[in-house]
Amino acid sequence: MVGGGQLARMTHEAGIPLGIRFKLLSDTPQESAAQVVGDVVIGDYRDLETLRAFAQGCDVITFDHEHVPTEHLRALEADGIPVRPGPDALVHAQDKGVMRAKLDEIGVPCPRHRLVRDVADVVAFAAEGLSEGAQGDGFPVVLKTVRGGYDGKGVWVVRSAAEAADPFRAGVPVLAEEKVDFVRELAANVVRSPHGQAVAYPVVESQQVDGVCDTVIAPAPGIAEELALQAGELALRIAKELGVVGHLAVELFETRDGRILVNELAMRPHNSGHWTQDGAITSQFANHVRAVLDLPLGDPRPRAKWTVMANVLGGDFPDMYSAYLHCMARDPQLKIHMYGKDVKPGRKVGHVNTYGDDLDDVLERARHAAGYLRGTITE
Amino acid sequence: MVGGGQLARMTHEAGIPLGIRFKLLSDTPQESAAQVVGDVVIGDYRDLETLRAFAQGCDVITFDHEHVPTEHLRALEADGIPVRPGPDALVHAQDKGVMRAKLDEIGVPCPRHRLVRDVADVVAFAAEGLSEGAQGDGFPVVLKTVRGGYDGKGVWVVRSAAEAADPFRAGVPVLAEEKVDFVRELAANVVRSPHGQAVAYPVVESQQVDGVCDTVIAPAPGIAEELALQAGELALRIAKELGVVGHLAVELFETRDGRILVNELAMRPHNSGHWTQDGAITSQFANHVRAVLDLPLGDPRPRAKWTVMANVLGGDFPDMYSAYLHCMARDPQLKIHMYGKDVKPGRKVGHVNTYGDDLDDVLERARHAAGYLRGTITE
Repeated sequence: MVGGGQLARMTHEAGIPLGIRFKLLSDTPQESAAQVVGDVVIGDYRDLETLRAFAQGCDVITFDHEHVPTEHLRALEADGIPVRPGPDALVHAQDKGVMRAKLDEIGVPCPRHRLVRDVADVVAFAAEGLSEGAQGDGFPVVLKTVRGGYDGKGVWVVRSAAEAADPFRAGVPVLAEEKVDFVRELAANVVRSPHGQAVAYPVVESQQVDGVCDTVIAPAPGIAEELALQAGELALRIAKELGVVGHLAVELFETRDGRILVNELAMRPHNSGHWTQDGAITSQFANHVRAVLDLPLGDPRPRAKWTVMANVLGGDFPDMYSAYLHCMARDPQLKIHMYGKDVKPGRKVGHVNTYGDDLDDVLERARHAAGYLRGTITE
Repeated sequence: MVGGGQLARMTHEAGIPLGIRFKLLSDTPQESAAQVVGDVVIGDYRDLETLRAFAQGCDVITFDHEHVPTEHLRALEADGIPVRPGPDALVHAQDKGVMRAKLDEIGVPCPRHRLVRDVADVVAFAAEGLSEGAQGDGFPVVLKTVRGGYDGKGVWVVRSAAEAADPFRAGVPVLAEEKVDFVRELAANVVRSPHGQAVAYPVVESQQVDGVCDTVIAPAPGIAEELALQAGELALRIAKELGVVGHLAVELFETRDGRILVNELAMRPHNSGHWTQDGAITSQFANHVRAVLDLPLGDPRPRAKWTVMANVLGGDFPDMYSAYLHCMARDPQLKIHMYGKDVKPGRKVGHVNTYGDDLDDVLERARHAAGYLRGTITE
């Protein structure tokens, strides 16, 4: 696995019972996964020769993140190393322009969008969004760099032409999108194997705070059965049409008028699937491993009526130890997942999962633990 | 953790989400745990200086097996290294003579037993077991070396004075025990922390084949509520009286007349607790880690009505890969736990867990998978 973050850490954890010999390419020995994996190579994934040397002896290469240059992945494939997901699929998770063009082509509903070259393009794009006869300039508009963004980085909500200049300063292509009037965000997680076997997890609700995932509720409360089915089928269709192998997370907007629109794609285990570690028969990490190795996939169904995942962000205090003790003592059913990272304000350093029959209780327990660990709750 | 076997492998797996930095002392780099742990020291646990060097920088030392010499553990403690379970507790799992004497002292029901020095002692011991006025010589009798046995090794069922000579040939002390007329074997698993917090898992039925654990059913089917309670309380009492820290497995005989007698003790995660990985809210491995680090313990209650664990033994074919594929494809809910060991006939190389509401179905699925992986079932 290329990349030493928490996704690699948890993928290794899930691979141990499957008997998988896991090899890691990590930037430094201090990274989350590098702390717990036996076979670690330290090196820079942006360097092709480093990747080539790492790939020696691997049955298959997969990723903790989408940042490996597409041309390097093609070079590995040319060397005969299976890369899963392959570069032709992964490019849709690497480049939002390519993703939008492909989703348009296969008829997947997306927010209105266009690649823009300058502020004038943005102004024109905004104006085109006005309903016939409506007043105003069509702002706000969402601008995104097509590559390199995550957790709200590389994304701007601009309210005027003046604000629209910023995203162009980096000199990378920019995508304009309508600011969707959504009631909530959903995520459809599916896993697909090279055989073409695929499984769909229940559609979840994902709640963001400041552009960062805060809480995930599985399944999405009160979702219309037809909409849940539609979201699952959409994700399975995207996985098939794009040739995805492994885990695919499809982030969705549920609009005020009851439609779903695709927001983002990720082709790796995803924050919206962390609940599966304790809430599903087979976790997203186990199924990602099974898929990339072309093993039969495991049952994705939930084990509990409700499962809630809450991210643990770093707070003002670098030492979480006493809070960690408190949370375990308060709730013996709490499932803690720490990433071994130094605590910095706002940094994702872990998550907690809770499950049960009573959603209010399950939510309260998860939020209390995450808040207590961050230091925003002290009772 | 000292010892590179599968118990260390699964303890590391359980420690990852808790954020634990796990360090391993392993005989060779090929061992089960050494394949998946990041921080591995290769060395011989029988050598005190190796142990001392390994212990540098560890917050606490615990064990994958009971074979570390008691005097080495005392030396580590004298160096200021916390050893959990400590030598005064662990000796009861290392030496069956010490264990029986202590259990007698605290009034725990055991099979009739005595340390024996020679065949004449065995003959006398056997004769004493005859009911008043009964005919015969009192054989069979069980003989055990007090140290070093496991999985039926170091245990003899002798049917005559002539057969009783064998166990004395190694020159180690031998314990004679009555051959208990039991209806089944049970196991009571508990975990205790240095704080004195303790949790009890449901009492399970353990089925042995040729002296090796074959299947574990959780909870023990049809067990009288009072007997289950009595077994759990007995295990908690033993943990407390012996000062156990970490996981304690108490192997029990359920006698034909409805009593329980203690067969063996193990002070580490135990085969009779593997079902907890998929069948309990907190696994025995997670609770062992939490106990030895004096963290609050997790909820030991079951998540399913029935959970069955079946051991996967090696069969005649060294390559299990196609069987592994078959089992995953046949049963997407099957939980496979492989140890990364080379397959040898009769060697424990993994286990499977199944769970559900219908015991017959859960048992069939586990036994089928274990049999198919071993090669004794081919359909």
